[in-house]
Amino acid sequence: MGDSGLRDYLDGPYKAARDQARVGLAEHAALLSEALELPREAYRDRVLEVLRSATADGQTAQGFPKEFGGGGDLGGFIAGFETLAYGDLSLLIKAGVQFGLFAGAILHLGTTRHHEAYLPDALNAHLLGCFAMTETGHGSNVQALRTTATYDAEAGEFIVHTPDVHARKDYIGNAARHGRMAAVFAQLIVGGETHGVHCLLVPIRDADGDAMPGVTIGDCGQKLGLNGVDNGRLTFDHVRVPREALLDRYAQVDADGNYHSEIENPDRRFFTMLGTLVQGRVSVGGAGINASKVALTLAVRYGSQRRQFGAPGAADEALLLDYRMHQRRLLPLLARTYALHFAQAELVGEFVRIFGADEPDTVSEHDRRALEAQAAELKALGTWHATETIQTCREACGGAGYLAENRFATLKADTDVFTTFEGDNTVLLQLVAKGLLTGYRESFGKLDPLGVAKFVTAQAVEIAVEKTAVRQLIERLRDAVPNRADDNDSDAGLRDDTYHDGMLRFREQHMLAGVARRLKRGIDDGIEPFEVFNRCQDHVIAAGRAHVERIVLEAFVTAVQRSPEGPVRETLKLLYDLHALVTIENERAWYIEHGRLSGARSKAITSLVNELAALVRPEALELVEAFGIPEALVDVPMLAH
Amino acid sequence: MGDSGLRDYLDGPYKAARDQARVGLAEHAALLSEALELPREAYRDRVLEVLRSATADGQTAQGFPKEFGGGGDLGGFIAGFETLAYGDLSLLIKAGVQFGLFAGAILHLGTTRHHEAYLPDALNAHLLGCFAMTETGHGSNVQALRTTATYDAEAGEFIVHTPDVHARKDYIGNAARHGRMAAVFAQLIVGGETHGVHCLLVPIRDADGDAMPGVTIGDCGQKLGLNGVDNGRLTFDHVRVPREALLDRYAQVDADGNYHSEIENPDRRFFTMLGTLVQGRVSVGGAGINASKVALTLAVRYGSQRRQFGAPGAADEALLLDYRMHQRRLLPLLARTYALHFAQAELVGEFVRIFGADEPDTVSEHDRRALEAQAAELKALGTWHATETIQTCREACGGAGYLAENRFATLKADTDVFTTFEGDNTVLLQLVAKGLLTGYRESFGKLDPLGVAKFVTAQAVEIAVEKTAVRQLIERLRDAVPNRADDNDSDAGLRDDTYHDGMLRFREQHMLAGVARRLKRGIDDGIEPFEVFNRCQDHVIAAGRAHVERIVLEAFVTAVQRSPEGPVRETLKLLYDLHALVTIENERAWYIEHGRLSGARSKAITSLVNELAALVRPEALELVEAFGIPEALVDVPMLAH
Repeated sequence: MGDSGLRDYLDGPYKAARDQARVGLAEHAALLSEALELPREAYRDRVLEVLRSATADGQTAQGFPKEFGGGGDLGGFIAGFETLAYGDLSLLIKAGVQFGLFAGAILHLGTTRHHEAYLPDALNAHLLGCFAMTETGHGSNVQALRTTATYDAEAGEFIVHTPDVHARKDYIGNAARHGRMAAVFAQLIVGGETHGVHCLLVPIRDADGDAMPGVTIGDCGQKLGLNGVDNGRLTFDHVRVPREALLDRYAQVDADGNYHSEIENPDRRFFTMLGTLVQGRVSVGGAGINASKVALTLAVRYGSQRRQFGAPGAADEALLLDYRMHQRRLLPLLARTYALHFAQAELVGEFVRIFGADEPDTVSEHDRRALEAQAAELKALGTWHATETIQTCREACGGAGYLAENRFATLKADTDVFTTFEGDNTVLLQLVAKGLLTGYRESFGKLDPLGVAKFVTAQAVEIAVEKTAVRQLIERLRDAVPNRADDNDSDAGLRDDTYHDGMLRFREQHMLAGVARRLKRGIDDGIEPFEVFNRCQDHVIAAGRAHVERIVLEAFVTAVQRSPEGPVRETLKLLYDLHALVTIENERAWYIEHGRLSGARSKAITSLVNELAALVRPEALELVEAFGIPEALVDVPMLAH
Repeated sequence: MGDSGLRDYLDGPYKAARDQARVGLAEHAALLSEALELPREAYRDRVLEVLRSATADGQTAQGFPKEFGGGGDLGGFIAGFETLAYGDLSLLIKAGVQFGLFAGAILHLGTTRHHEAYLPDALNAHLLGCFAMTETGHGSNVQALRTTATYDAEAGEFIVHTPDVHARKDYIGNAARHGRMAAVFAQLIVGGETHGVHCLLVPIRDADGDAMPGVTIGDCGQKLGLNGVDNGRLTFDHVRVPREALLDRYAQVDADGNYHSEIENPDRRFFTMLGTLVQGRVSVGGAGINASKVALTLAVRYGSQRRQFGAPGAADEALLLDYRMHQRRLLPLLARTYALHFAQAELVGEFVRIFGADEPDTVSEHDRRALEAQAAELKALGTWHATETIQTCREACGGAGYLAENRFATLKADTDVFTTFEGDNTVLLQLVAKGLLTGYRESFGKLDPLGVAKFVTAQAVEIAVEKTAVRQLIERLRDAVPNRADDNDSDAGLRDDTYHDGMLRFREQHMLAGVARRLKRGIDDGIEPFEVFNRCQDHVIAAGRAHVERIVLEAFVTAVQRSPEGPVRETLKLLYDLHALVTIENERAWYIEHGRLSGARSKAITSLVNELAALVRPEALELVEAFGIPEALVDVPMLAH
């Protein structure tokens, strides 16, 4: 296998941006050990220092329009950002807060006035900013935020106010120490009428770094990880900002206090605004995948040199990675990391197509919503994958894995919150499933369970819920799957990608139809819609997950097909087979329960997974080297012996 | 439900010791927040300070004979130690190193001379000590340690030596800062002959705290967690200690250099010595279970007061714990925590019976080995459970769970290594399965795969491997299970504990027989024994796990039966049902594959699990209150709103 061929293929169209990020990371590799020893405030300042030095080469502004000092290359920007996940993750998240969230809110929710006034300074990190959305009392349910921004027509100002401690802005990056300004999400009240959540720019510190009048700043203190980011709390006591502070791309308030928005439906307006911020989810998912690559690189290298026990009388003890159990623990995660990498590359491609369009308005709302769903589902899968992979790799390195110098400590702690921020994974998968249930999420009106249940009753039922229709659908899918549960030849076709895809599609469709049927039955029985929905919540989330698994699998299929013929493709196909069969194996209970797999064939899959893992094993080192993690970042003491 | 009734029942015979530990923990509750802010060295010293103050009430010496300042109450000692896991876990582990490992090695491996000379000072923590077993190159494979202790008959001394960096003692608690003496495990060489691993007491620091001549002390530095424990590295350069330094209960060297041991077989001698140290595993498993209780107390309380989303138009948003998915995530873990608690109580009872026996020599070797296996398997299950439970609880508390003030950060980081130390869980389950395969572990000779494979070929085959015998066994078990896969009445008997037990026994026996058959087939086919064993390593470990699951289930059954009639028993039975059915549900693929479960019945189990979780939900708060965690330890900011 030509390893550089594999690496080039993984790097894809944004190779240059990734390489540029790699150079920067290698240069600042010392940050990894500084992070272990510096007191919290010093670590925060050090991260800011590195962040500022990183703005010099222009990469941090790469995704922004050229007229504001950016590079106009959205894809390169995201690829570079993801690559930062190879290094200190506080730096990654600090960059995400500053350039992705704060500058991103200005770019997407503001208009030229805001762009000109703030983007250049935001992009060179002179103006540090916060993204003040989450409150102590509301994280997932953003629409229910309780901070208010009330327009005072006489003064031509908005009054930003925190009614009580539950409405305090919480967990806000850049707030505790460095932020000068915050993009504050608040219920907009104009002329006594509430128009829902909007975003305003509110200065929070003066030039001396002191809190502005009326602003109380707290510190979230020590966190599980990411202690190089200064998360804090913001409380506003009738803080006045000029009318122009409203980021008014989607809604405007004129001097006389008239509210106007081109999007009349308040829910649609809210989700449109939120939708422009999808880049955060795209980036976090990618970062999770890349953090997994670091853990796997360390664990695969360690397993390739660490010996313990072995055949008596042999000259050496056996290498850990030659043990079946070790292969079983690590190599399916390696395969899945590749799968997610390719799914992420597809997502970024779609993101660039939509957000990088010369005429953004030509992009259909349907495509935007599809992108949002894709970002949500991949964020959930990629970040859960990181949690699982890093944990498994830590355990696979035993006591050495527990020493901070070997990187798992911070990898584990820093990525832990990825499953929570930018949307709690469980909530995200639920949203994805809801979207699938209706086909068009905008038809929901509200994203609450009542809206969904009503919608399903009214429409989805007609297309999917009738028992006959469901049965027909299932029959059709069943026929499309080459191998039936009753086949005797239980090994045949197990490495055929149309078989894998058929299995995953069958599961996805069957689960969605099952959920729809349960929702309809509940409504028909007169049960309260929220209760109906809640009773099948686990089913809904499992359906969402089944969908994402299929998307990821298909991305891997495509990536194998498009890869350079020869050793690269052969290796990728092997890894793909391992991933596909482990995915089916993980859900084999469901497949058997639903008549899609016989017991014999299920056992054959387990055997084949073991065989494939053994075939991947000799390639494992090259497979992790292809991630191209700078040597300075994985040159840890446990690998030096 | 009478909550104090439930708590009393959980506390069991060692209630007084648990309550005493609770009082001490509440008194030192400030250590939890100090741990977040103190620099490493100050934190280490603070932990030592609290440890020393804890010796004052005598509890830390509770498990030792009265003549050396102990209390002679082994069960109370372990119960108290486990309870320490409610608080700062560095304190727990520091106590474990000092009293369990260091003093424990002196007590169990030494003789009166050592007891009199060192135990009193070890028990009042004036003499801080290390347990220097693990080396950089050898953790799991203790028999292959490479530090040497060579007897110099002329001088009447042992020369302790580290031949190279791989033989350096590593990850040693108390080594980096506080330890004065180490119980060093080394290959004993007398008259040119190597007698295997033995333990000697070696002074490592003088009264001023400086390293002794020939001893080089390193610091493991920052760790993923447990940073209040000073783990370090010890290298010995021909360090001389008197002949009396050998802990000589099981083997003696006389002044002329004659080696003598009552146990002639070196392997048996080694495992006998190691077996006396089983208390460490018993304690760590219990600590893992108790750390899970802290996480569950926090998450269940949070889920019972935190609201998010909900039915539109409702006065309040819905409580997290009223969501099905939230119940599904947390309540099976709560049920399993109870199951493990009762299994642990049984283990401690057995431990006390054997180690607290007035005449220890009357305890059969078979019983000792059974205890070792039970300790190993429960350590594995209890510590993996901790990792999973704490992670799930953290995620279930969202962003609040990520703030260190809410305790998950340290709980997660500190317990992470529990799956590794005192025996890597994967290795432990493998040992358990090997023991089961042969019935008598001592028959192995060596615990290496070759020995096992040979043994299986020679003997186990006769009793279990013949196809006919296996089939008969399976048939017998099949008949013992009331509900067959082909039953139509798919709900019947699902809450019958003989059904659960039958299912788990069937799985355990079937897997063990399957492994034995594969081993035999491999050997018969002339495959190299190590390779034969390695090919079914995943199968071996799964069989070990199946065994432990059955043991834990049965402990829960017994605990329900013995509980006070009335509300306590009713609540426990409900929780037990949830645990039993989730355990079967988790392995439903296997049961269906092996014809023990129909698809319909499998789905019925999943539905019933949901129903049971909903029934447990109103009891959840009382169930966590029954753990009796001092309020000062769970009075965290996220619960104050």
